[in-house]
Amino acid sequence: MKTVPPRHSALLVDLYELTMAQCYFRYKQHAHATFDLFVRQMPRNRSFLITAGLEDILQYIRQLHFGSDDIKYLRSLKFFSEAFLEYLADFKFHGDIWAMPEGTVFFPQEPVIRVTAPIMEAQLIEGFLLNTINIQTMIASKAVRCVLAAGGKGLFDFSLRRTHGQDASLKVARSSYLAGFEATSHVQAGYYYGIPLAGTMAHSFVMSFASEIEAFFAYSSTFPQKTVLLVDTYDARKGIRKAVKIGQELAKRGHRLVGIRLDSGNIVALARFARKALDDAGLQYVKIIASGNLDEYKIADILGKGAAVDGFGVGTHMGTSSDAPVLDVIYKLSEVGDNKHSLMPVMKLSTGKVTYPGRKQVFRINDRKGVFVKDILGLEKETPDGQPLLEKVVDRGKVLYVCPALEHIRARVRESLNALPAAIKELRKVQMYAVEISPALRALTVDVSRRLA
Amino acid sequence: MKTVPPRHSALLVDLYELTMAQCYFRYKQHAHATFDLFVRQMPRNRSFLITAGLEDILQYIRQLHFGSDDIKYLRSLKFFSEAFLEYLADFKFHGDIWAMPEGTVFFPQEPVIRVTAPIMEAQLIEGFLLNTINIQTMIASKAVRCVLAAGGKGLFDFSLRRTHGQDASLKVARSSYLAGFEATSHVQAGYYYGIPLAGTMAHSFVMSFASEIEAFFAYSSTFPQKTVLLVDTYDARKGIRKAVKIGQELAKRGHRLVGIRLDSGNIVALARFARKALDDAGLQYVKIIASGNLDEYKIADILGKGAAVDGFGVGTHMGTSSDAPVLDVIYKLSEVGDNKHSLMPVMKLSTGKVTYPGRKQVFRINDRKGVFVKDILGLEKETPDGQPLLEKVVDRGKVLYVCPALEHIRARVRESLNALPAAIKELRKVQMYAVEISPALRALTVDVSRRLA
Repeated sequence: MKTVPPRHSALLVDLYELTMAQCYFRYKQHAHATFDLFVRQMPRNRSFLITAGLEDILQYIRQLHFGSDDIKYLRSLKFFSEAFLEYLADFKFHGDIWAMPEGTVFFPQEPVIRVTAPIMEAQLIEGFLLNTINIQTMIASKAVRCVLAAGGKGLFDFSLRRTHGQDASLKVARSSYLAGFEATSHVQAGYYYGIPLAGTMAHSFVMSFASEIEAFFAYSSTFPQKTVLLVDTYDARKGIRKAVKIGQELAKRGHRLVGIRLDSGNIVALARFARKALDDAGLQYVKIIASGNLDEYKIADILGKGAAVDGFGVGTHMGTSSDAPVLDVIYKLSEVGDNKHSLMPVMKLSTGKVTYPGRKQVFRINDRKGVFVKDILGLEKETPDGQPLLEKVVDRGKVLYVCPALEHIRARVRESLNALPAAIKELRKVQMYAVEISPALRALTVDVSRRLA
Repeated sequence: MKTVPPRHSALLVDLYELTMAQCYFRYKQHAHATFDLFVRQMPRNRSFLITAGLEDILQYIRQLHFGSDDIKYLRSLKFFSEAFLEYLADFKFHGDIWAMPEGTVFFPQEPVIRVTAPIMEAQLIEGFLLNTINIQTMIASKAVRCVLAAGGKGLFDFSLRRTHGQDASLKVARSSYLAGFEATSHVQAGYYYGIPLAGTMAHSFVMSFASEIEAFFAYSSTFPQKTVLLVDTYDARKGIRKAVKIGQELAKRGHRLVGIRLDSGNIVALARFARKALDDAGLQYVKIIASGNLDEYKIADILGKGAAVDGFGVGTHMGTSSDAPVLDVIYKLSEVGDNKHSLMPVMKLSTGKVTYPGRKQVFRINDRKGVFVKDILGLEKETPDGQPLLEKVVDRGKVLYVCPALEHIRARVRESLNALPAAIKELRKVQMYAVEISPALRALTVDVSRRLA
């Protein structure tokens, strides 16, 4: 679509980013730094993650500025000097950003985004970057598990009502589509992102007619080519029989009932009943869609029992990544200097929160068939074998990277899934993928920790 | 603040709401209905819930319309008739809405919002209402548990980076403030909602100076009255000693160090060490703030061990309601008729998803001291003892209700907490509160289920 979501506000920021910037402005105006954005620990039940969110980040970088209302509000806080507020009024991002493209498989400790910039600028974008990568990567990484579980069956995002707010509802639709879902019910996500839309009907629709068959008739005559009938408002088996009748009526008029939806009860048994009833009536083409509190485990169970389900409406659990609703995503300083020519590697030594210093790159090693073997986390200047995963996307404030179409990202995810070792794709057994620390990075880490300790 | 968040789009809707509306438009243009928005089941680890989200809903009702771009997009889907698109272009909400005010304690099965309207209108607002109530009520209900655990100590929302997107980041700041948090780090939440802002400094700030003490000095000279020093970037005990020095320096110049922040390690031991070091140096007024993956359980543990912590920065777990990241919030038809004078009670009979029919009200029974005893879920026309919790907030499309200031809602929450039985406030033991079904509602339920079965 031409229309893009509203611009991201520069005020989407933690107060401390601004107070620290005021200090830098006073003491270290020319200081430069490198920050790594990465996931510290794998969320539970996950063996791999899928990047998402870069498109929003690049749009943010392009548009980032403080409006006059923003400055007025900041002035009212009585935290900031006029000189600093003037600096903010002219604020733009001038740094470099390296990032993994959206749809890349990655693992903890690997920088997904690396920012090198004047420290004030690098610091100010922290909150937006973390927030954006957190929700979108978390959801893509959950949705792709549903894709694995569904083994080629269609998946539909029905999560709008249960996502955490409006922004999440859009980002979930996009992230799940990118991960391999077929469509979303979210009309605005269709509008903004061009994602195909899907939908059926609600129980209340059926209830608002004097009888189930009347409701089915009203819907199927309005949308003779696009009807999916929800059959379990009262008695699911009776509902299925009525749907069969509607399917036959449509067929007589040269139309095809698209499907029926089962939203409660024993999905496996009901699907078996429905498939037989539909087939016996010559309606082999009518699809059976299941919904109702589904997640990757339930999808795998339903299909594991051989249920004749052709597609799944997935809402709540995917849309909130309910078993792991947080990604331990952090943004850590890895180099700093008083100007851009004097950057020195640094690291954090806090208990349990030690980080790797220096300007890093991730190298992916594949075998001859293209299957992922291991990753190496090394220094940028190293050249081990393997494909470097971080690409330069912003150069001195200018966005270089052209975000590919969502279809292209979907294809990248599909390819990556094919290249992932089977053990890593297991739904129920968490497996550690090998991320090696290069000898040079290991040596640097020892050096820097000695220097700082 | 004068400025309000951007208007809510009418496209924030599931496709099926629009396709069902197209059917209603064709077959039942004058049909009216009542829908109840309620929580079906208590989320785990919760014994009570706190309403939040009404302000956004009323703003949405006021502004709701389809713009010309929206209509253009909907036309492109080839689902809708021109007559129906014309109807949408003139769409406004004309119904009545009853709601519990924000900050009300409530329990599963109790309608939080009740909508009576032309069925097309009542249906179209479903997605927005559910999404809004879900995130805000879920967070208020999580945050209030932190408030109970903190027993009067200050709580600060630091969750921006881990909430599910931008909208959630704002709504979490507002919902947690409403529940009793003192401040947020989220600058835009301060801007929109007038919530007090709080913040300290990041590890990267400390690391970007040649030494910890230099970083402390730079910050405290920039903000001599507003400094909270983060002391655990390298060695926390050494960091605390340096903070003491800074505190003494500030004191010499007539300023007061506000606090120190502990973000890792053994908070109880470090707080003991810090309190003694500060007190020994005459810095009794310097506060100790703890942060780092806190939730209500950790806060209770820390305070239970007698730790000298004066306030808590709470992020991730509160901001995502991580132990229960979903509210089982639903919107169910309870009355329907072909016009507004013929509404008849209806209910859903799907396995495990049975609902109560009819136009309902919630009555709260208190004892003489004002302590909550039980609630009665009854029919609107009944008049049992007890205070009715649903108020009329929209009358034939016109918003009647004036949303109180956030401070007022905070006060309501505080009062409600005082009136809640102690057992319901237990953090670690889930307790069922008595919600009785009135005899009249029970009789109606039996009648309607017989009629529909």
